[in-house]
Amino acid sequence: MTHDFSNLRIDFPVLDQHVGGRPLVYLDNAATTQKPRSVIDAVARFYERDNSNVHRGLHALSMRATDGYEAARARTAQFINAADPAEIVFTRGTTESVNLIAQSWGTANLKPGDVVLCTEMEHHSNLVPWQQITARTGATLRYVPIAGADAEGGLDLSAIDELLTPEVKLFAFTHISNTLGVTNPVHELCAKARAVGAVTVIDAAQSAGHELVDVQALDCDFLVFSGHKMAGPTGIGVLYGRRALLDAMPPWQGGGGMIANVEYAASTWKPSPERFEAGTPNVADAIGLHAAMDYLDAIGRPALAQHECELAGYACEELSKLPGIRILGPRPGQPRAGMVSFAFEGVHAHDVVTFADQDGVALRGGHHCNQPLMRKLGLPSTTRASFYLYNTPADVEALVTSLRKILDFFGVE
Amino acid sequence: MTHDFSNLRIDFPVLDQHVGGRPLVYLDNAATTQKPRSVIDAVARFYERDNSNVHRGLHALSMRATDGYEAARARTAQFINAADPAEIVFTRGTTESVNLIAQSWGTANLKPGDVVLCTEMEHHSNLVPWQQITARTGATLRYVPIAGADAEGGLDLSAIDELLTPEVKLFAFTHISNTLGVTNPVHELCAKARAVGAVTVIDAAQSAGHELVDVQALDCDFLVFSGHKMAGPTGIGVLYGRRALLDAMPPWQGGGGMIANVEYAASTWKPSPERFEAGTPNVADAIGLHAAMDYLDAIGRPALAQHECELAGYACEELSKLPGIRILGPRPGQPRAGMVSFAFEGVHAHDVVTFADQDGVALRGGHHCNQPLMRKLGLPSTTRASFYLYNTPADVEALVTSLRKILDFFGVE
Repeated sequence: MTHDFSNLRIDFPVLDQHVGGRPLVYLDNAATTQKPRSVIDAVARFYERDNSNVHRGLHALSMRATDGYEAARARTAQFINAADPAEIVFTRGTTESVNLIAQSWGTANLKPGDVVLCTEMEHHSNLVPWQQITARTGATLRYVPIAGADAEGGLDLSAIDELLTPEVKLFAFTHISNTLGVTNPVHELCAKARAVGAVTVIDAAQSAGHELVDVQALDCDFLVFSGHKMAGPTGIGVLYGRRALLDAMPPWQGGGGMIANVEYAASTWKPSPERFEAGTPNVADAIGLHAAMDYLDAIGRPALAQHECELAGYACEELSKLPGIRILGPRPGQPRAGMVSFAFEGVHAHDVVTFADQDGVALRGGHHCNQPLMRKLGLPSTTRASFYLYNTPADVEALVTSLRKILDFFGVE
Repeated sequence: MTHDFSNLRIDFPVLDQHVGGRPLVYLDNAATTQKPRSVIDAVARFYERDNSNVHRGLHALSMRATDGYEAARARTAQFINAADPAEIVFTRGTTESVNLIAQSWGTANLKPGDVVLCTEMEHHSNLVPWQQITARTGATLRYVPIAGADAEGGLDLSAIDELLTPEVKLFAFTHISNTLGVTNPVHELCAKARAVGAVTVIDAAQSAGHELVDVQALDCDFLVFSGHKMAGPTGIGVLYGRRALLDAMPPWQGGGGMIANVEYAASTWKPSPERFEAGTPNVADAIGLHAAMDYLDAIGRPALAQHECELAGYACEELSKLPGIRILGPRPGQPRAGMVSFAFEGVHAHDVVTFADQDGVALRGGHHCNQPLMRKLGLPSTTRASFYLYNTPADVEALVTSLRKILDFFGVE
């Protein structure tokens, strides 16, 4: 039984508005998703009923706040099928999660001669931290290349066995590219990395809230994602780490909640996950994230993934009929994740986004935090339409209608 | 004209509840404060109307979200009288702010032979990061001692000129102790540090939302605080840094939003504040913090400070009449910030908190993230009552009544 996606829009208050005189068509979901009423209410309800600091409190509100925060952690473990809630560290988002791994694991484990491998399609958040830590430790950073002039082949895996040498200590790759709409073969990449003893980091920012993700089936070492890209609040994210790895890592940030014992001369640390959560956590937004996971699973992630991919496939098909368009990633008819990036000869992406906004269609234009990939593809920027559960085929049609007007205006035929 | 503090309770939904059959008396404000309706609504309204990613967007929602986020930054600058909104970096909280300074400024500036000075009354969040960075760089960490067996003299400043040698590169100290209720002479400490060329870091977690704080008048280099301790949301905090210092500091976390240019080989950075805000920021909670600052300033921070100090003074006076009590920090009748920490011979703080909770009085018991200070004072833990704008003299009376019952129960006379 497939969920009825035709009217989920009513669960999202923000979508009940007009922009440019027309109902908002929100197609900027890869940047951030909208929040259902249940998530907004969960955050408000925490402040209205239970707000308190966690962990060290013994009064009623503090115990309720702690229970809510730890229930969010347990729910997150279940959401990605982690073996143990202690493998879930709450962070501000994907970016902080990657930086935590790079600075804690990297400082303890990387040395000159070691290699960190990532890919040419990584978001800056899964690329810059590896540049920083390899520069600091003297390790080398290498990239798996993309295949095809429009990256239509995704990652070029013909070179993967050559790149995955025993010197590779860590392999960081995205599950779904935020720019190309490519889904990488993450099971295969994890298995190949494991074969050479490399630790794996999966950037699941574009996948965890869109399809079933199972860290035990993947057999990955780290997996990271953000709440705000999966119907949850801003300011909360997740770092999954295999317990043995987390417990062997030094702390990153110091402060309250992460210490076992502090003396003026030196301190000792709690085990994971507390070791990595210094300071008062973002309790309210962890509870909001819990509500988001419940919302998504009430729909069912397999159905959600199918819905988004169908919309993106339909968009790709229709967009390919427009004059002078260049579409990145999979060709029309090929499997594609829930987004399409494209460029028109002679019309800048910023103009496309600005004009579409006047028709109430919200798009993103730019380098999508992927400057070196853009440079490699010979593009200054692209326009991206990205879909989520509340989008419908009518949204695709509004997009195409608006783009046709823009092309007419700019005289593209 | 003094504000009427007698019924601010109605602005805070969470206070409209019973615990243990009695109206909640919330005296755990130094751990976290409650949120007024206006703050809860500001966060919800953002998600209901404007939610989008910021900075790189050109559509209507993205522009509104960016405007809201940057307005929160400008409001924060005004709140502490910073010269320039670019001197405001949004973080997760005080702890992350201190870690950012320690890891960015510290890595770039500390070497063997250098000294970091802090004080014996620092919260773990302003102590552990300095242990970590001095250990990593080979610098030395020293402490300004406290004065008196109950720290009734605050900081022992008789030794300050001896401690502030030219080797001291950074002096980190709290404005108000979260354990002692001591207010430090921050203007004097900044001036003395400046005289030897040391950079100053003020932990304003217990002051920024309680009294007027003016970074230009203080002439400090860094000042840090948390939203959740000043009527704002969890997950948002502030790092104020003098612009020239911030612009000279290397980035800490890498990712989207903080880069000027990324190539596969290396990257360059934006100026402050973007340089230090990698990844999608916590937009909703920055906007919530803005509402909190507006709420506090509608009351007026000087009146608020007076109200809290009067309550704490009254509490100190009444508590001092209880048998076998030991009160930390200023003596009854002396000036005191808005909290009182105390201990009873023979009754553990955890028992005090647990019994008080049954009377609806929410207290905190423990080491208050201040283990080495507790050890120095010869106490395993204390009970702390901390006040905020919604508390009243009746709350102090409820506290004292509950404590008398507990002492009776334990047979303390």
